[in-house]
Amino acid sequence: MPAVGRRVQRFLNAQSSAPQTRAAHDYGEITPIVVGTAFASRRELYTSGIHRALQAGIVGSASTGAESIVLSGGYVDDQDLGSEIIYTGHGGRDPATGRQIADQTFTRQNQALVTSCLQGLPVRVVRGSEHNSPYSPDVGYRYEGLYRVESYWHARGADGFLVCRFHLLALANDQSQPSIISGVPSAPPGQARRVPSTVLRIVRDTAVSRRVKELHAFQCQVCGIRLECKGGPYAEAAHIRPLGAPHHGPDAMENVLCLCPNHHVLFDNGAFGIGDDFAFVGLNGRLRTSPDHIVNRDHLNYQRYMWGRS
Amino acid sequence: MPAVGRRVQRFLNAQSSAPQTRAAHDYGEITPIVVGTAFASRRELYTSGIHRALQAGIVGSASTGAESIVLSGGYVDDQDLGSEIIYTGHGGRDPATGRQIADQTFTRQNQALVTSCLQGLPVRVVRGSEHNSPYSPDVGYRYEGLYRVESYWHARGADGFLVCRFHLLALANDQSQPSIISGVPSAPPGQARRVPSTVLRIVRDTAVSRRVKELHAFQCQVCGIRLECKGGPYAEAAHIRPLGAPHHGPDAMENVLCLCPNHHVLFDNGAFGIGDDFAFVGLNGRLRTSPDHIVNRDHLNYQRYMWGRS
Repeated sequence: MPAVGRRVQRFLNAQSSAPQTRAAHDYGEITPIVVGTAFASRRELYTSGIHRALQAGIVGSASTGAESIVLSGGYVDDQDLGSEIIYTGHGGRDPATGRQIADQTFTRQNQALVTSCLQGLPVRVVRGSEHNSPYSPDVGYRYEGLYRVESYWHARGADGFLVCRFHLLALANDQSQPSIISGVPSAPPGQARRVPSTVLRIVRDTAVSRRVKELHAFQCQVCGIRLECKGGPYAEAAHIRPLGAPHHGPDAMENVLCLCPNHHVLFDNGAFGIGDDFAFVGLNGRLRTSPDHIVNRDHLNYQRYMWGRS
Repeated sequence: MPAVGRRVQRFLNAQSSAPQTRAAHDYGEITPIVVGTAFASRRELYTSGIHRALQAGIVGSASTGAESIVLSGGYVDDQDLGSEIIYTGHGGRDPATGRQIADQTFTRQNQALVTSCLQGLPVRVVRGSEHNSPYSPDVGYRYEGLYRVESYWHARGADGFLVCRFHLLALANDQSQPSIISGVPSAPPGQARRVPSTVLRIVRDTAVSRRVKELHAFQCQVCGIRLECKGGPYAEAAHIRPLGAPHHGPDAMENVLCLCPNHHVLFDNGAFGIGDDFAFVGLNGRLRTSPDHIVNRDHLNYQRYMWGRS
């Protein structure tokens, strides 16, 4: 038995004595399975919890997002650059020939990957030996770690049918320094660069954030707008007292607002505050509240303090 | 002469035969000075181009952003965690005692760091030996690489005066893979984590993007809104045909729109397209244009194709 096989076997042994209850959806790492772990079969993958379906390439649902995908075979336009993958969704193929015979739609598992994109959920990626890529294992399956869905689109393939496509990017495996984000600076003005560069705006999304957004039905608590994207509604969770040094705000519902991106930028950049009576300071109007979402006035006070308003 | 001193000396020798014209503002790396390079004095730093002022802690202007900062001494509440720095701005101190005797304002060099934050510009960071941090060099100054300004705020210090504060995060030094962004996945629902985690939304900002935003005076080309933040106006540059694989859109003005964050999210997620006559598809209205900003219809057509609209 090769080394990786032994590791899986140890895991499976440990698992058999663990509680058998599992969440309806289960994102992220499956401790103690590490990136690079090999699996002999779809059955082993299934039992491990890495990919909880025996045939489907995508595990997940439209409402909760995608847990995991298995890359196997693939669409003619797919690209696999290792930490960056262009992936085509499910559906519309003739089971006999594998050829595309109908449009793919953003429903079911395809919609699950859209939800992962809009909500920033991590997706476990597994490569199979039949996957057409230099990164595929020679035999069986290999767990490749967590990716995020950077974007999705819906384009017509060479055969004339619409396909759902996804751009996946590997997430860093080291999660010990969550507030230090690696990025690339913008290009200096007037100085040529080989490649376009990027900067990042960080939008935090956690279980708490998702709950707040759902409670407000993705409507902005300032202006009431709900952004209707092709893949579903979009809102952002704004931490009132920021996470991380030096503010150390909690990731708790009482410290989170559901905002549209515009009001998120304005709030984070001090354009307005919110008083103890929920009336805005520096803006007309009052915060939209929900009886199930109690905002802590101490955090509102801290944000006003950050901007010299108290 | 120690090894690092020699390296600087070689650089200075090379520099003396180089053209003496320098840009009015000069962001990013100064080739060939590498991270960790030591300098004996502010004069050496100045001559190298790393920090182009002999006394000021911040080099830059309100309109163009900050090029570089030197950490030296520091405010009582400052924190230096290495790749993460809490930094206090300039002004309001008694030159004799160094004590805060007046409010700091977001003007001049302080505003320069705000501009860097809002426009996503990289800032060169230098630590001096007098800087109160375990990361400071024993003598002289050390170039620490590029940071971005993650956030800024304006809070009352222990002495009762308002100070301008900045949260700086180190940028990755390896710029060879700009489209692969390291991030941290969001926390799995119901699973406790030691720390809150984050996901990223990438907003690209380049010299081209900044030019487009300036041409439109930071007004959204869809709705006309201009977000007025405490530190100045905010808009986002949206690439029509996305950068990077598999779309390979160019970072050129003809492929960039100036949008508010809301319409950026809606455009990137297929909620609307833009026709050859600049009328929106999937939304009422027509794109606001400028005679100095010609949008390429091929890229508009590509975006429609991405969303099955052509």
